Amino acid sequence: ASLGEFGLIEKLTQKTQLFNEETKLGIGDDAAILNFVKDTETVLSTDLLIEGVHFDLMYTPLKHLGYKAIAVNVSDVAAMFAVPKQVTVSIAISNRFSLEAVEEIYEGIHAACENYKVDLVGGDTTSSLSGLVISVTVLGTNSLGNSVKRSGAEVGDLVYVSGDLGAAYVGLQIMEREKRIYLENNEIQPELESKDYLVQRLLRPEARTDIVYSLMELGLRPKSCIDISDGLASELFHLSKQSKVGFEIYDEYLPIDEQTYNTALELNLDPAVCALNGGEDYELLMTFSKDDRKMLDRLPTLTQIGEVVSLEKGNILVTKGGNRIPLKAQGWLHF
Amino acid sequence: ASLGEFGLIEKLTQKTQLFNEETKLGIGDDAAILNFVKDTETVLSTDLLIEGVHFDLMYTPLKHLGYKAIAVNVSDVAAMFAVPKQVTVSIAISNRFSLEAVEEIYEGIHAACENYKVDLVGGDTTSSLSGLVISVTVLGTNSLGNSVKRSGAEVGDLVYVSGDLGAAYVGLQIMEREKRIYLENNEIQPELESKDYLVQRLLRPEARTDIVYSLMELGLRPKSCIDISDGLASELFHLSKQSKVGFEIYDEYLPIDEQTYNTALELNLDPAVCALNGGEDYELLMTFSKDDRKMLDRLPTLTQIGEVVSLEKGNILVTKGGNRIPLKAQGWLHF
Repeated sequence: ASLGEFGLIEKLTQKTQLFNEETKLGIGDDAAILNFVKDTETVLSTDLLIEGVHFDLMYTPLKHLGYKAIAVNVSDVAAMFAVPKQVTVSIAISNRFSLEAVEEIYEGIHAACENYKVDLVGGDTTSSLSGLVISVTVLGTNSLGNSVKRSGAEVGDLVYVSGDLGAAYVGLQIMEREKRIYLENNEIQPELESKDYLVQRLLRPEARTDIVYSLMELGLRPKSCIDISDGLASELFHLSKQSKVGFEIYDEYLPIDEQTYNTALELNLDPAVCALNGGEDYELLMTFSKDDRKMLDRLPTLTQIGEVVSLEKGNILVTKGGNRIPLKAQGWLHF
Repeated sequence: ASLGEFGLIEKLTQKTQLFNEETKLGIGDDAAILNFVKDTETVLSTDLLIEGVHFDLMYTPLKHLGYKAIAVNVSDVAAMFAVPKQVTVSIAISNRFSLEAVEEIYEGIHAACENYKVDLVGGDTTSSLSGLVISVTVLGTNSLGNSVKRSGAEVGDLVYVSGDLGAAYVGLQIMEREKRIYLENNEIQPELESKDYLVQRLLRPEARTDIVYSLMELGLRPKSCIDISDGLASELFHLSKQSKVGFEIYDEYLPIDEQTYNTALELNLDPAVCALNGGEDYELLMTFSKDDRKMLDRLPTLTQIGEVVSLEKGNILVTKGGNRIPLKAQGWLHF
């Protein structure tokens, strides 16, 4: 408290590294100066993380939280098929937080900035009368006209997702279960030994910039793209609405990790429902021209899960038995 | 609540207007696309407004709050001597807010966007377990190398401020007084008839982009600039630190509106102290080369309040009687 607002910001940001030549001026003035060149387009996105809504501090390490705040924003840039460049971070904290606690958040922020090679170029730190609030804005660049929108999917396109789905959701159920057990008897230690992947996916997700860069290297560009933050089904509805197409998704092709699958069954959850409606996967959902199939097979981290059909056909889940079930956009709505 | 997050965002943003050609894609995708041209630099700033810390909903109309959230961010761009172009707005609201209440906030946001000709290009809306949170990020552009930093002041420069100072602070004291009276007896109506200017300065401040554009037209460029959000004294310390200079400010030249002056006395406050430490004025504090004096005299909205001296001389307030009092940076610290 004796540091004052400016002293705190200075202390927190002194470790800030700049990675990009175009960042002309970072923290320390009224605004950051970024010098963009011709033939470049800039993408801009922002996200707000609220304690008790987006995270529970009872099982969320602050360092992971800082990392995640950056990763979920970078994920939006990856979903545009652009390269993340700069972020701003605003944090509101209550008095119950120590300076060390805030520094832990920033440790995670710096780690993510280094991993994704983005520059923290500004922000605001203030007090909060109640919970912790983190607001991140990210800028990315792309060559002119190269950003991939939600509106580019066409009938006949192949639908791909990166990585696997449902792990963060199942991880959340596990953490909530352990929290309940702990609150009933705080001598019982959480049983998370065989749940490491699920916990990591929930608490420290990664943006799939690696996928974007791999595709770029292969000269491949999706026709539409979105990141999976509210659940696969919900994102399919976004693509459907903006591209004016329908989707046929094959149940049996949904990529689900073994730990996700087994733990879902342990919790009496349907693994496919977790994959479809779980949310917070931060994987990329993309559609590609059929011509790209051969090249796409070179990327083991991508799975074809269906194809694009006409708007009239709707959004359909095809089960192994051949049943056609209309999808519902039951995303991870915060409202 | 039945609208869902996306429906709400759509509803709230359908009135969004785009004013700038470089805004290629606004709300509705993972990120906004902005196409910048060569020889242009981009400025980026962000601010977080927290209920109970930055505003009291008991006397803050939501429409004004939305307007202010944009204005205070645009003010940061003005302080860089740049032209505001795009904003993103994230809002966290608790269940006690109706859709109409959120729409009122956005009415103010849209009014400010129109006034400052900035494009709302993105954002996030989420629930909050407690208070209202508004996070705004703004982008502005400037010709390459033309942004004005805090670090450019030199010994011999003249110190100017735009408009007048202390009104928002005195307005806050009035609102707090009326709130106390109302809480004691809610049949007493607030007496604000002769306080209209103070109330407006507190609840609906303007960014001084008009000053920036006037100076640009005259071919004038400050050597250093900062906007007055935490109080004149506090901002002088920022310029002092970053430019490595001292300041001599003349008490009698501080521009104080008559309503501010009289109301300060009514409240047993020293008007000069209100002007120096009040905060939330959102006026511009600038230093200019002595050669610019004649041209600056053409701008009645600017007042010379002192000059830049060496770092060793420190930051000094010179009173009418000739006393030299060291300034203290007692800004409107939120910590």
